[in-house]
Amino acid sequence: MRRNPVRARTDRAELYAVLDAGLVGHLGLTLPTGPLVLPTGYGRDGETLYLHGSSGAASLRAAASGVPVCFTVTHVDGIVYSRSAFHHSMNHRSAVVQGTARLVTDPDERRHGLAVLTEHLAPGSWEHSRQPDRKELAATAVLALDLTEASVKARTGPPGEDERDLETPSADWAGVLPLRTVWGEPEPCPLLPAGTPVPARVSSRG
Amino acid sequence: MRRNPVRARTDRAELYAVLDAGLVGHLGLTLPTGPLVLPTGYGRDGETLYLHGSSGAASLRAAASGVPVCFTVTHVDGIVYSRSAFHHSMNHRSAVVQGTARLVTDPDERRHGLAVLTEHLAPGSWEHSRQPDRKELAATAVLALDLTEASVKARTGPPGEDERDLETPSADWAGVLPLRTVWGEPEPCPLLPAGTPVPARVSSRG
Repeated sequence: MRRNPVRARTDRAELYAVLDAGLVGHLGLTLPTGPLVLPTGYGRDGETLYLHGSSGAASLRAAASGVPVCFTVTHVDGIVYSRSAFHHSMNHRSAVVQGTARLVTDPDERRHGLAVLTEHLAPGSWEHSRQPDRKELAATAVLALDLTEASVKARTGPPGEDERDLETPSADWAGVLPLRTVWGEPEPCPLLPAGTPVPARVSSRG
Repeated sequence: MRRNPVRARTDRAELYAVLDAGLVGHLGLTLPTGPLVLPTGYGRDGETLYLHGSSGAASLRAAASGVPVCFTVTHVDGIVYSRSAFHHSMNHRSAVVQGTARLVTDPDERRHGLAVLTEHLAPGSWEHSRQPDRKELAATAVLALDLTEASVKARTGPPGEDERDLETPSADWAGVLPLRTVWGEPEPCPLLPAGTPVPARVSSRG
């Protein structure tokens, strides 16, 4: 049998690459009603992930209360078409981080965490936008999650096929249909003065 | 204050649209060690989501044991650049499904669930590939999750700005940088006979 199994990766560079290439992660925590998984913005500084959300959100308050959480970032890279239904698959990279989130309370670290988050979402934006005031800071919960318990899995390459399916082909095609995300044309805020140029940090975003 | 808050949607058509447009969801469940969030393939048939995975995976066995789970699908549609760091945001659509997954054991429904999953991943593939044999069926756990407890949230449109930031602009730009996913060129399996044409279900996938 030809296999391209999902492989567990251990390299920190691979972990960082998967996290840094993502925009949204999925934060899982256990509430009295059961598990909850919510899309969550984030940013990475070394071995620390910063997450944030409304300080009024029940989920964020729960995550900040010292309970275990899981944060997962996934990229889908392609659809794997196989000669068998069974070996259809998805090329992907994913990072799974488990741990206990820490509510960031130190004012300097809160500001640092927000800068990391903003720069991850929109590189260059932190210094090009109005800094958060006291009220905005109070409305924002910043969490820190350590990357100690983190793992990466990835699947790449063509379909893994059974020999029997090569000998007696049952499908008209097999291979990979790649998938990628691309930026569109920047859409200026309608309230911007006409003719405001789009800065390179937006128009040339990698 | 001009706000474009994240809005909760209730329409079933919106829920179906978010689910049907996704490829991977994030399944959350609570293990003895804490919450676990794993990328998971799925497909929808009416009010039922089918999920699947290796019947040997501890996470799938746990999810099939009648415990509450959460399944979330998220699309990132754009980065929202604001005049303030605080109002930076992400345009997105997400569906959150909570409930108790049911392990599908009826042979007909198992086959049906796998067909739904395969057709979601690769439309047209089910009838164009070898059907699963007994061993492959035994190796695959199929779960069903009811959409009764499902909600959709979405954020669209330009940044929501404070009036003060319009009066005293602190940023050089504001607006939305759209993001979308596109298919790349199909990559035939190296073991395919040379010149095998790419079927329209792959080359013209919407």
